[in-house]
Amino acid sequence: MKKKMTMQDIADMSGVTKSTVSRYFNGGYVKDETREKIKSIIEKYNYEPNAFAQSLKAKQSRIIGVIAPCLDSTVTSRTMMAIDDYLRKENYMSLVINTDHDEKLELKYMESLWRMNVDGIILIATQVSEAHCALVKKMDLPVVFVGQKFKDGISILYDDYHAGIKVGELAAEKGHRDIVYIGVMESDQAVGVERKKGILDGLKHKGVTKIELLHADFSFDVAYEKVKKLLMKRIPDMIIAATDRLAFGAYKAIQEKGLRIPEDISLVGFGGYEISSLLTPKLTTIRYDSDTAGYIAAETMSKLLKEEPVPKVQIVGYELLQGDSIKEM
Amino acid sequence: MKKKMTMQDIADMSGVTKSTVSRYFNGGYVKDETREKIKSIIEKYNYEPNAFAQSLKAKQSRIIGVIAPCLDSTVTSRTMMAIDDYLRKENYMSLVINTDHDEKLELKYMESLWRMNVDGIILIATQVSEAHCALVKKMDLPVVFVGQKFKDGISILYDDYHAGIKVGELAAEKGHRDIVYIGVMESDQAVGVERKKGILDGLKHKGVTKIELLHADFSFDVAYEKVKKLLMKRIPDMIIAATDRLAFGAYKAIQEKGLRIPEDISLVGFGGYEISSLLTPKLTTIRYDSDTAGYIAAETMSKLLKEEPVPKVQIVGYELLQGDSIKEM
Repeated sequence: MKKKMTMQDIADMSGVTKSTVSRYFNGGYVKDETREKIKSIIEKYNYEPNAFAQSLKAKQSRIIGVIAPCLDSTVTSRTMMAIDDYLRKENYMSLVINTDHDEKLELKYMESLWRMNVDGIILIATQVSEAHCALVKKMDLPVVFVGQKFKDGISILYDDYHAGIKVGELAAEKGHRDIVYIGVMESDQAVGVERKKGILDGLKHKGVTKIELLHADFSFDVAYEKVKKLLMKRIPDMIIAATDRLAFGAYKAIQEKGLRIPEDISLVGFGGYEISSLLTPKLTTIRYDSDTAGYIAAETMSKLLKEEPVPKVQIVGYELLQGDSIKEM
Repeated sequence: MKKKMTMQDIADMSGVTKSTVSRYFNGGYVKDETREKIKSIIEKYNYEPNAFAQSLKAKQSRIIGVIAPCLDSTVTSRTMMAIDDYLRKENYMSLVINTDHDEKLELKYMESLWRMNVDGIILIATQVSEAHCALVKKMDLPVVFVGQKFKDGISILYDDYHAGIKVGELAAEKGHRDIVYIGVMESDQAVGVERKKGILDGLKHKGVTKIELLHADFSFDVAYEKVKKLLMKRIPDMIIAATDRLAFGAYKAIQEKGLRIPEDISLVGFGGYEISSLLTPKLTTIRYDSDTAGYIAAETMSKLLKEEPVPKVQIVGYELLQGDSIKEM
């Protein structure tokens, strides 16, 4: 039988003061060692934090936490601005935290926000692990995942797999056979796994199986270096870049080598940044509707807080922006 | 003589419960009407919030609030990433809030962060008003201003005026006489006022006084529309854009009109985004050292929290990135 514990009980058992336990639940500073002690007591006694959570949030804080993998990606920025805009009009304040693509920080910051008594969390996630699921369950707080599928809850998704297929098929249809794909780490489920899988499947559908994989992160500089190195060895028919930013790095390396796009090498990206259409030649790219994703994420959060029904999965659209960076072989 | 008030006193005088007053100081939800009532009592009795603040922050929260005018500017994003990176290594968490270039929200969110018990605030400010000064004084919390001069406190500045002079002089030296400047609202002191003033003074130094001023915001679309309209009437020697993003809008309008840069019209920007060097022709632009600005802002905050001495004003550098977008007249 579950014992109804008080903060004082937890304090006594952890050997700390009640105010330390209170800080633990309120997001204040607690030494790591002490935090672990309190945590283990709570877990040992199967303590239900909701009782505290309920009393703490007798009133809404009108604060929504937004956790993002970075602050300097065009797509993420666009999504965050749309979230922020919607929530502000609904009289919420959004607090943004950057995780720098670190899953552990994602979990840690979700807990921090929870203990800071936010009303809900929108997570522009890099992946969804078992730890994410366990934490969301424990928090009993509305959480909306953007960009990654959260099987136990609410997700707003880009259709990365099918966008990837579209690009893979396009590359093959235009006659390219020797393809280099420059991608990001697989810890990013949507971009690193789904998008790549779509591209490879799209190519395979059309009989292309020779693909060299380059591994970059999300930065311009690393993409530039990787493509530069590649071009010192050989010139493939085409480079498919996992994001427009990586494609920009490729532009630089290709231009420096004195090669022409698309005559000497074709290039395609994913992102559809405003700037991509200003390059010479115009970059052919997939534009995800990230404004809509942000809007829908915020709207869904707002509905959850009003206890209105929401769909479990919402998938936003994409379109192929035709540029001039792919040649007809 | 000042009376030492308690939360209960304020509650009694405001006709609310003590827990509402507590929420007021802790950043929880309080109805606007109630908030005003509590505020007026506090002001009437010249109540010193520090007593609460002190007791609330017997321990550091290890949270730094970062207030930004937007989440989707290249320079701001770069600054925020550098701040975040530094603070994380020092075991702080940074919470970012977007104000959408709204000064009132800047003030409101500073108060919100203060009541949320953050250890300090880094404000990437759009301006510094009397209200800012009064608020910072009242909060008694370390505040670092980035990008705007805060005469009563600590600022990290870009040298907007002198960068402007450099560009203005360059434009004149290259023989341009008919100049259009596309700028942003004057409520932005650094970009809207200082940068413009520098450009105009630089031109004046070299005898150029014919300048048409176009007013945009920070968006690509508005710049595009303004320049498109301009080009329907006439073609000036040169367009000076207050930011690279505005210059990108000008690129689009110029290209659509079938004009060539720089043969038909010269163009220069401020920002030095990675992408600006990939355009054809390469954009000539000023690159501010925003990584350094972010690093210094975070370092300064960290020092303030350790009560180490810091300079009142720190000015980071800029450089002219030579592109091919300015012709020799």
